[in-house]
Amino acid sequence: MTQPLRLGIAGLGTVGSGVVRIVQTHAALIAARAGREVVITAVSARDRTRNRDVDISAYAWEADPVALARRADVDVVVEVMGGHEGPAKNTTEAAIAAGKDVASANKALLAIHGQALAEAAEAAGRVIRFEAAVAGGIPVIKALTEGLAGNEISRVLGVMNGTCNYILTRMESAGLPYDTVFEEARALGYLEADPMLDVGGIDAGHKLALLAAIAFGTRVAFDGVELEGIGAITIEDITQAADMGYRIKLLGVAQMTGRGLEQRMSPCLVPATSPLGQLQGGTNMVVLEGDSVGQIVLRGPGAGSGPTASAVMSDVIDIARGLRLPTFGQPATTLRAAKPARAAVPAPYYLRLQLLDKPGALAKVARVLGDSAISIDRMRQYGHEDTTAPVLIVTHKTTRSALDEALATFAQTGVVAGTPVAIRIEAV
Amino acid sequence: MTQPLRLGIAGLGTVGSGVVRIVQTHAALIAARAGREVVITAVSARDRTRNRDVDISAYAWEADPVALARRADVDVVVEVMGGHEGPAKNTTEAAIAAGKDVASANKALLAIHGQALAEAAEAAGRVIRFEAAVAGGIPVIKALTEGLAGNEISRVLGVMNGTCNYILTRMESAGLPYDTVFEEARALGYLEADPMLDVGGIDAGHKLALLAAIAFGTRVAFDGVELEGIGAITIEDITQAADMGYRIKLLGVAQMTGRGLEQRMSPCLVPATSPLGQLQGGTNMVVLEGDSVGQIVLRGPGAGSGPTASAVMSDVIDIARGLRLPTFGQPATTLRAAKPARAAVPAPYYLRLQLLDKPGALAKVARVLGDSAISIDRMRQYGHEDTTAPVLIVTHKTTRSALDEALATFAQTGVVAGTPVAIRIEAV
Repeated sequence: MTQPLRLGIAGLGTVGSGVVRIVQTHAALIAARAGREVVITAVSARDRTRNRDVDISAYAWEADPVALARRADVDVVVEVMGGHEGPAKNTTEAAIAAGKDVASANKALLAIHGQALAEAAEAAGRVIRFEAAVAGGIPVIKALTEGLAGNEISRVLGVMNGTCNYILTRMESAGLPYDTVFEEARALGYLEADPMLDVGGIDAGHKLALLAAIAFGTRVAFDGVELEGIGAITIEDITQAADMGYRIKLLGVAQMTGRGLEQRMSPCLVPATSPLGQLQGGTNMVVLEGDSVGQIVLRGPGAGSGPTASAVMSDVIDIARGLRLPTFGQPATTLRAAKPARAAVPAPYYLRLQLLDKPGALAKVARVLGDSAISIDRMRQYGHEDTTAPVLIVTHKTTRSALDEALATFAQTGVVAGTPVAIRIEAV
Repeated sequence: MTQPLRLGIAGLGTVGSGVVRIVQTHAALIAARAGREVVITAVSARDRTRNRDVDISAYAWEADPVALARRADVDVVVEVMGGHEGPAKNTTEAAIAAGKDVASANKALLAIHGQALAEAAEAAGRVIRFEAAVAGGIPVIKALTEGLAGNEISRVLGVMNGTCNYILTRMESAGLPYDTVFEEARALGYLEADPMLDVGGIDAGHKLALLAAIAFGTRVAFDGVELEGIGAITIEDITQAADMGYRIKLLGVAQMTGRGLEQRMSPCLVPATSPLGQLQGGTNMVVLEGDSVGQIVLRGPGAGSGPTASAVMSDVIDIARGLRLPTFGQPATTLRAAKPARAAVPAPYYLRLQLLDKPGALAKVARVLGDSAISIDRMRQYGHEDTTAPVLIVTHKTTRSALDEALATFAQTGVVAGTPVAIRIEAV
């Protein structure tokens, strides 16, 4: 019988406790599947005395996660502390240096330091796995790295932050403004301590950068992700998008273009009847597109103790089974540095303008679009509210630069009040 | 540099040609990901001279696939011939005996002979992989075997035959009867040479049996699958189910119960708004439910050259990378023989009866249900057509045996014409 695989758990929050629970509950099941026992030998967390719903008394305690990472009786360090500097980074580096494998749920750490960590791990013959870092319980890293390994990937997209999707779907279903639903989400404990990680798209941007690295064989480049949060989305946009058959989602899109790697995490319109359009509440969805396979859609819980721990255990059991791969699916030294391309792929856009009540106003707006070579697919003008009238425009495909030119010119027409809203319509 | 991995392709139909195309088109991509080259050394098919859209002139030709399987210059035999006896079985057995790994798209062979083949392969230290056998391009075998390996699986379900789903959705969208759409599907080339493989649920039943073996650690038992095809589904049932918020799908469901392993492949009603209910046309969808992860939904193309070849290549690249697992995720000798349980899990049912125009008819029907301890959730009686009136009933949860008792008793009431229709409503 092969020796047991010995885990050291760094972090005993929601995810860490979930991992402990699975190892304790399913010891026989895991041993049958992995061909060897998986056991926990040591744990580390900030507070030893905190009341937890799992019994950790059988495990050695380390106050310092770096010391845990160096223990001789640990084979795999499970890093579920979070944060892209400090203890998480030190622990991961110490684990690699001490010859341990790592299973991590830390999207920020890997999105920012992934290249260096992968190179260090591969030089040491160790693996870093991070299924839990992207889309919670959905086995999307495995699907992309292994399941679609025979495909040239053309596009990866998805809804990867459940909190934002909760806020947007709740705004629509209850007809409530952003600020109200944001406060509701905060009260429900759905938001990170720094809410910009959620509503600013940062957390989802980390995930997108990790998927893009695997999909395109490029060095993970979070700083190449165009980030735009959901804070500017109004209930008017949600309602009027719905009227035209769309829903607004915080959508991550990565694709390789002739001009470089495009990575966007921003609000987009998607058809209300598409799988992405129908995604309600905190669920995540990732769409993978490859030249042979076509389109694969994966849907599941993007957060929570059980789903995230399930993903961690998938990595742990892979390691126990001897399934070992480079961090990003191919050796880190072979990953290319991709040139970032800003919104290189043309798309239709949804525009919302407040038109002043002046003769010829609509004609002026239409002429600005025409001058930027943007043609109009559909337009609706609503009745005047006081001195302005809302106008909705769906354009045909155009480049972001042509659109920006038109948006800048609107201000000079003298017939547009305030700042126009422009939201990309993504084909899904 | 590691030696190239050498493939022998047995079968050059749709799938085999697709595999050749990927290997030829993506040699560099695959080598980067696999860490070694993947090459084709030999091929075998029924007709060497047939016009193919891939160039096979560089490969050795074997008229006999068994000879191909024994070639010294082949490491992995790709079995994409199909059929559960004859050449496919002989070739797979010969490959294992000759010390080759096997990547197979053959659901019938594995559903019927999987246990014996897995035992032989594992005794010889070889692997048999079959991602392409279930749900085409969707990496569902990998998701279940590896991605959810930390979960106790509670249920696996899904739409696994694209042709049946095409027929059912086309019946609904065009308002056409089964026979008409069946002939359309045949004319479009969507049906197997023996159409019962599709519309009788056999092909999908093979896939379900394979998923159940992995999910529950049991010996693959196709003969334990309750099979019911879609041939008896009428346009009336589809329309009336839609009126009540449901769609009819040929749904496979496997779950472990206190009474044994339940495996059903049969028409079921699912909520029209659920992901399964919204699945249109030839697309497949598999839902995996585990105790930690909750529910994961996978959606994608279930057939076709590109998607199926993508799945074959996933297995081939796994082998090239050294990722080796027992056929069903744990050693075949440790798989349990599960007792088959027929519809052990209670469910609500949809019933459609033709009620004769007699006083007290509805009361008699209601009493029969009550006597079998079946309570009614919703009922609709439509206007009389000639001498009978259609009655639709949605029951609360009941057992199949109580329902069968009620169905048998209806005939004795003297108020029910013809044979009542009963379709299970699956919670999804």
